Amino acid sequence: MKTLNTISSKTVVTAVGLMSGTSLDGIDAAVVTIEGCGLDSKVKLIQYVNKPYDPNFRERLKELCTLEHSNVALVCSMNFELAERFAQAAIEAVQEAGMPLEAIDFISSHGQTVWHIPENSADDPRLIRSTLQLGDLSVLAKRTGRIVVGDFRPADMAMNGQGAPLAPYGDLILFRQGDKGRILQNIGGIGNCTALPPGAGPEELLAFDTGPGNMLIDQAVQTLSGGQLMLDAGGAWASRGTPNEALLTEMLVHPYFKQAPPKSTGREVFGKAYAEHWIAKVKSAGCTDADIVATATAFTARSIADGYRRFVLPRYSIEEVIVTGGGAHNRTLMQMLRTLLPKQNVMTSNMLGFDDDAKEAVIFALLGNDFLHGISSNLPAATGAHRATVLGKLALP
Amino acid sequence: MKTLNTISSKTVVTAVGLMSGTSLDGIDAAVVTIEGCGLDSKVKLIQYVNKPYDPNFRERLKELCTLEHSNVALVCSMNFELAERFAQAAIEAVQEAGMPLEAIDFISSHGQTVWHIPENSADDPRLIRSTLQLGDLSVLAKRTGRIVVGDFRPADMAMNGQGAPLAPYGDLILFRQGDKGRILQNIGGIGNCTALPPGAGPEELLAFDTGPGNMLIDQAVQTLSGGQLMLDAGGAWASRGTPNEALLTEMLVHPYFKQAPPKSTGREVFGKAYAEHWIAKVKSAGCTDADIVATATAFTARSIADGYRRFVLPRYSIEEVIVTGGGAHNRTLMQMLRTLLPKQNVMTSNMLGFDDDAKEAVIFALLGNDFLHGISSNLPAATGAHRATVLGKLALP
Ligand SMILES: Nc1ncnc2c1ncn2[C@@H]1O[C@H](COP(=O)(O)OP(=O)(O)OP(=O)(O)O)[C@@H](O)[C@H]1O
Ligand SMILES: Nc1ncnc2c1ncn2[C@@H]1O[C@H](COP(=O)(O)OP(=O)(O)OP(=O)(O)O)[C@@H](O)[C@H]1O
Ligand SMILES: [Mg+2]
Ligand SMILES: [Mg+2]
Repeated sequence: MKTLNTISSKTVVTAVGLMSGTSLDGIDAAVVTIEGCGLDSKVKLIQYVNKPYDPNFRERLKELCTLEHSNVALVCSMNFELAERFAQAAIEAVQEAGMPLEAIDFISSHGQTVWHIPENSADDPRLIRSTLQLGDLSVLAKRTGRIVVGDFRPADMAMNGQGAPLAPYGDLILFRQGDKGRILQNIGGIGNCTALPPGAGPEELLAFDTGPGNMLIDQAVQTLSGGQLMLDAGGAWASRGTPNEALLTEMLVHPYFKQAPPKSTGREVFGKAYAEHWIAKVKSAGCTDADIVATATAFTARSIADGYRRFVLPRYSIEEVIVTGGGAHNRTLMQMLRTLLPKQNVMTSNMLGFDDDAKEAVIFALLGNDFLHGISSNLPAATGAHRATVLGKLALP
Repeated sequence: MKTLNTISSKTVVTAVGLMSGTSLDGIDAAVVTIEGCGLDSKVKLIQYVNKPYDPNFRERLKELCTLEHSNVALVCSMNFELAERFAQAAIEAVQEAGMPLEAIDFISSHGQTVWHIPENSADDPRLIRSTLQLGDLSVLAKRTGRIVVGDFRPADMAMNGQGAPLAPYGDLILFRQGDKGRILQNIGGIGNCTALPPGAGPEELLAFDTGPGNMLIDQAVQTLSGGQLMLDAGGAWASRGTPNEALLTEMLVHPYFKQAPPKSTGREVFGKAYAEHWIAKVKSAGCTDADIVATATAFTARSIADGYRRFVLPRYSIEEVIVTGGGAHNRTLMQMLRTLLPKQNVMTSNMLGFDDDAKEAVIFALLGNDFLHGISSNLPAATGAHRATVLGKLALP
């Protein structure tokens, strides 16, 4: 344990953060330096690498995330295979940073979520609150020769939290400001936000899923283009239409939006079934294709702004909205958000000089550092845990 | 990490070792004190508790260990459910020892093996060398409020070992003698032995899985009794039959037995599928039920003695064979072993004053202690690993 002390007594440590998200598209690896720990951590991004999965492996991962095509042997193997891939990604990131591996004090790995049960199942008593992230920490440690921390979610669930979201803790460290309130808005498949009032502390913040992110837009584009287009690049198609106000009003009546945070949603609610039903309806309302894409885009923008107006703006003074995720590339969506939030400065994190693709990997490096300092890194305000607690597990090289 | 240092600087630590074996019968919890670390560790058993699984849970565990009835959601849930049960077992053991939980410096948990792939599959490229032990360490740490070490096997596999057997390291510490050779024979679900020549060191020993332990006997008893009996208590049923020699000879032709150590096997090879196929066959060979149980028992005894004659006795002088595990309670099996090994003193570890049910749990407490000292605890001679390495992962309360 001497090495661990050396790390936690260093003023600045160098680490690699590893993340592989639910879209199963690849591994994000961020080489960072961290000064201090906890909410006072100062982090600097040295190098960011994205290693996409090949389509064949991605297909295998997708299958593992289904009840029909998974089994215990595949979970067993994938846990080791992912660790080998994580090790490769970490090694490449360090090489690209022009550093020797020995310069890395530790690697911190989120792992690949392959299943998540936020609440005990009402139908099947065998399925209890739990979460499963693969990518064995010992394999990763032995392969890289570095100390490894990782697998953060189970500790929060053990304290009765949902094990998610963990990112708001990092948002707090990276983006809080003493003198202004900020909202971090990620727009992936689903939209999720972390609202930080001026001088936010771990109890004074709000984090929740705002509703659909790109999910409905993507589905509309794919259906209307007969499968030719996967997404509305830059928001060009939406920019040629006009949102249908009557339809929008009706859509925003969905009970999810009224529900108070903490709350989360997903593909089960705003996925393919919702989209197809909705598209049939708007078509019969006489909308043009461009109007439909514009309405889907406005729905995302409106549900985000409405969520702020319902739950955030009455409590916190917010000056900036910082958008991350694929939705930040949709200029029509960004423009709508700006119009809906005239009092806020709506920007992308890239405009702040922070590479948003690297954000989650950087945040998990922070969580690893906190484990090594023996301090907590979940936010009960975000996950619903009974209390803050040390997250993660440690493996030695 | 300060707490960790306090532990590794203590002269004597108090720990709980937890083991749940491949026979899926329950949890062994041993409260111990340990002085020193590594091969010089001195361990004292304070309290031993066995918590059997209820039949319903055992059935669910068994199903999870099959390709047909397992899936990713069940693995996810079981990882958490087992951890809760491990926590309960640890807490009860400490209570029975009349100690407060605060007196426990750490808990060390082997976890429940649900799958093990010692070599890459030739048929299915997705199935690579790997091992899967369930019972989440973070859940165990949060539930007990103690530091937890565990999940030792993956680290050895990452160093190209088979991840098994790990017990020989503990056998060496507990049972080596300057002046006589000993074999430690554990008969759990699988049989495994550690052969210690006189004055054995970490490189001078042999360890391997001998083949099925009680696995086939149990399955035969369960099938033949229509699920009424779980095991052949004391070997009474086997004692009323006669082993079928022709069948035995045929069974011993299995390629596993000829394979040179290091080697390991499991439920994947000698589990339910093997047993059912075999039982159907012996029945059609006209054996009585008692003959079938006797033949299964003789198969275990013969495969053990044959293993010694092939790999151990030509190299080492062995005076004592010390049997541990549930099989030590099977008097018919013990008698068969004595007959097959006339030159050795075949005894149970209880006869040496060492509670054999507790042995594995005690050994895993030793491994946990070594992790906290940052020292290796695998024996390359036993597992085939490239080198000795620190085994385990750490979770904090
Ligand atoms: N240039 C672009 N123009 C418009 N939209 C884009 C562009 N690039 C990406 N997107 C949108 O962003 C989506 C991908 O976003 P992102 O990678 O943040 O999602 P994710 O991380 O997979 O999802 P989640 O964060 O919900 O798990 C695409 O599906 C697409 O809808
Ligand atoms: N009184 C007894 N008589 C006969 N056999 C017994 C008796 N008690 C236990 N056993 C046998 O021992 C088995 C349990 O042994 P043990 O607890 O050592 O196995 P395990 O630790 O689960 O397996 P492994 O060591 O392979 O992981 C039972 O399944 C049964 O077959
Ligand atoms: Mg994302
Ligand atoms: Mg055992």
